Amino acid sequence: MAADSLDQVVSLCKRRGFLYPGSEIYGGLQGTFDYGPLGVELKNNLKRLWWQHNVYERDDMEGLDASILMNRYVWRYSGHEQTFVDPLVDCKTCKGRFRADRLGDAACLKNSKQHPGECEGELTEPRPFNMMFKTQIGPIPDPESFAYLRPETAQGIFVNFRNVLDSSNRKLPFGIAQIGKAFRNEITPRNFIFRVREFEQMEIEYFCTPGQDEQIHNTFIEDHVNWWVNVCGLSRDRIELYEVPAAELAHYSKRTVDIMYRFPIGLEELEGIANRTDYDLGSHSRDQEKLEIAAAVNPNAHSTTRLSYFDQASNRHMVPFVIEPSAGVDRGVLAVLCEAYEEETLENGETRVVLRLKPALAPIKAAVLPLKKNEPGIVAAAKQIKNMLQATGQMRAVYDDTAGIGKLYRRQDEIGTPYCITVDFDTLGREEENGLKDTVTLRDRDTMQQERVAIADLPALLLGRIYGAS
Amino acid sequence: MAADSLDQVVSLCKRRGFLYPGSEIYGGLQGTFDYGPLGVELKNNLKRLWWQHNVYERDDMEGLDASILMNRYVWRYSGHEQTFVDPLVDCKTCKGRFRADRLGDAACLKNSKQHPGECEGELTEPRPFNMMFKTQIGPIPDPESFAYLRPETAQGIFVNFRNVLDSSNRKLPFGIAQIGKAFRNEITPRNFIFRVREFEQMEIEYFCTPGQDEQIHNTFIEDHVNWWVNVCGLSRDRIELYEVPAAELAHYSKRTVDIMYRFPIGLEELEGIANRTDYDLGSHSRDQEKLEIAAAVNPNAHSTTRLSYFDQASNRHMVPFVIEPSAGVDRGVLAVLCEAYEEETLENGETRVVLRLKPALAPIKAAVLPLKKNEPGIVAAAKQIKNMLQATGQMRAVYDDTAGIGKLYRRQDEIGTPYCITVDFDTLGREEENGLKDTVTLRDRDTMQQERVAIADLPALLLGRIYGAS
Repeated sequence: MAADSLDQVVSLCKRRGFLYPGSEIYGGLQGTFDYGPLGVELKNNLKRLWWQHNVYERDDMEGLDASILMNRYVWRYSGHEQTFVDPLVDCKTCKGRFRADRLGDAACLKNSKQHPGECEGELTEPRPFNMMFKTQIGPIPDPESFAYLRPETAQGIFVNFRNVLDSSNRKLPFGIAQIGKAFRNEITPRNFIFRVREFEQMEIEYFCTPGQDEQIHNTFIEDHVNWWVNVCGLSRDRIELYEVPAAELAHYSKRTVDIMYRFPIGLEELEGIANRTDYDLGSHSRDQEKLEIAAAVNPNAHSTTRLSYFDQASNRHMVPFVIEPSAGVDRGVLAVLCEAYEEETLENGETRVVLRLKPALAPIKAAVLPLKKNEPGIVAAAKQIKNMLQATGQMRAVYDDTAGIGKLYRRQDEIGTPYCITVDFDTLGREEENGLKDTVTLRDRDTMQQERVAIADLPALLLGRIYGAS
Repeated sequence: MAADSLDQVVSLCKRRGFLYPGSEIYGGLQGTFDYGPLGVELKNNLKRLWWQHNVYERDDMEGLDASILMNRYVWRYSGHEQTFVDPLVDCKTCKGRFRADRLGDAACLKNSKQHPGECEGELTEPRPFNMMFKTQIGPIPDPESFAYLRPETAQGIFVNFRNVLDSSNRKLPFGIAQIGKAFRNEITPRNFIFRVREFEQMEIEYFCTPGQDEQIHNTFIEDHVNWWVNVCGLSRDRIELYEVPAAELAHYSKRTVDIMYRFPIGLEELEGIANRTDYDLGSHSRDQEKLEIAAAVNPNAHSTTRLSYFDQASNRHMVPFVIEPSAGVDRGVLAVLCEAYEEETLENGETRVVLRLKPALAPIKAAVLPLKKNEPGIVAAAKQIKNMLQATGQMRAVYDDTAGIGKLYRRQDEIGTPYCITVDFDTLGREEENGLKDTVTLRDRDTMQQERVAIADLPALLLGRIYGAS
């Protein structure tokens, strides 16, 4: 299984309501996408499973939800004002602007392999272009009154380190987890929701004493690979670990390992897990000179707070080391969709499209279908079952009678609904006494096998199958 | 119950980790707040309950999650470029800038009641100030290449109307629900999280045929008042309906009713429910002249899509009317906190602070506490119970042994934890045979009553009490 090309997934997403291009009726806005009715459920399920695994099921994690707009000094001292740049060149002839590191040989992109011979212009020297979106804050157009849209959620955690520590009384090691939007002014957004200008991150900053950092790093790598495989259903064969070479490491990183996934567009980063040492807390701290910071931080003239921890064992204030697992929500959604997509040839020669999503991720958990939509008894029973499943509070269930049963099954297969429940005449018990009164047909998406199940057993049976084993 | 002043709630929120001022270590960023470990749980619970009520428990609702950055034409044709303005005046002497409608008499604000005699300056005439945040998109500083941060989530729904319709095969009436961030460059953010620059909305656009609109409007008003009362625990006595007078109606509105809540700062809007007629779909539509739009819309020269619905009964393309319930997530959080806050005098004369949150909203559902933290058997049993509750996947449970039992109870009362579970020697069954082996003490936050419960019964008992009756 898995999609052969991104186009298959893009087409399904638009047609069935997982994802639409952003602002489409006005010609779009490059690098933005809107999650449709099924997409928002899939994305929310992914986020909830991540939160459950990383916050609820651990005893050493707190959550956080910081704002997108932050004081500009956050981005000065994080290093983003200086270093969050792409090198751009301008063509002196056609006035095109391109990323220097994507040009290859030194010709205008309009005379590149992609666009041969379009332009013969001479290029300027590369200049740094900052990828942060900037906006004016407050009513007065004062050059100092601006803010950036955060390009990562991580800094919202670092600047709240003392707040969380003080209100939770945590001891090291402990982590802070956050899910939220981030924005990057990408020069060339591409590959559907893989590289976009507005996206969502699931990040942890895990604080520990130096010396614990390397082992914790390894543990997170293993744990998060297992999560993508066991909880999200990605194939282990399509995942590779990429040990970022020393020469390519970000300035703050002691070691970074990327969890790579084999998308139809190639092997690409799904999650990065970095050892950021004490760089971030150190950079945002007051009184840096008193804190024996290991990383090379710039002097901070604006922070009002020491981002340190009092270590009782050594009786001193120290700056914790940080391990950061940072995953893209949208990339996660894309990986899950690509992995689950299958065009399957059936015994009768027909093709069915099926999304083999883990049941806990599926937008709709159960579709209740009446065998005949003009039989009031069948319709009433089907709607009642739908309401009963909905009342569990743990699944989205739908009722559908807008086509024949075969077509309804195919529709649900295509959007990944793990269970279809069909109500028929036997359910009503009108026929000869055959013991099937108050039972329904339960059909499994993957095997297409059907079994007869008592209505009363459905909620527990489905909850067990959906959440029990994941 | 309920807080007497906002200060009580603000102080609790900071101290216990519900909310922190945004970017605090750099002196803050006015109008932004960060949700701490408890705040993020409370907010997520509120959003989940809203989604459950408005999407899952209905058969006529789809979800959506559109981007924050949208094509600028969205805001031209929605009317926001023209009309989303506050009137501002400048003081010619002190250069202060103020909202004209808040000045009262025509003196500089620095010589107002708040700031008597500070300045005698003369004011300019009021000028319109647009409250949308603007940002440059793409690498080239082209005056056309900008986007606004959405000032409301609603427009993301309108521009996707055809997409949702086409991928869901819905018939009128049906609605689209969305929860997401919005941004407004407020001149004077104030009152904690009540009026901020970055906030979250829970909005529904409900599409119907003209003629159905008035009744649907009334039904939503009643249903949503009941939701705030029954699900969120707001007192009906503190809620009032405000019928917006015709002269104050927004240009698109046929009728608007605000659900007002009596905050400690006064009676203020919690949710607005507006009849927007066919103004929005009509404004964003192509071929407006062919669609018999009732509202006075501006000609649209850029839309590529007819935002209409084919009505089989009348055999024509029509533009649906829209009922919009629009609630503030942060205002909801604030209302719930204010309502739940109580300083209670106990029989022994002591005061306890208790947050009487609905259990389904409480950040932590159960705290498992060892009577003695240096008894390995008690500690092990407590941690095992915590893990058992966590494994339900439906509650955040915590283990805490950092203080004596009385103090631990008070801490949990203050953050609204509905149930404390205490493990003692009887639980272990080491004492004389008293029938209490494998039982624990279950303490209720509100009544402070304790009962003895079998460990094995805890998950079902708690789930029933937390979610059963809400």
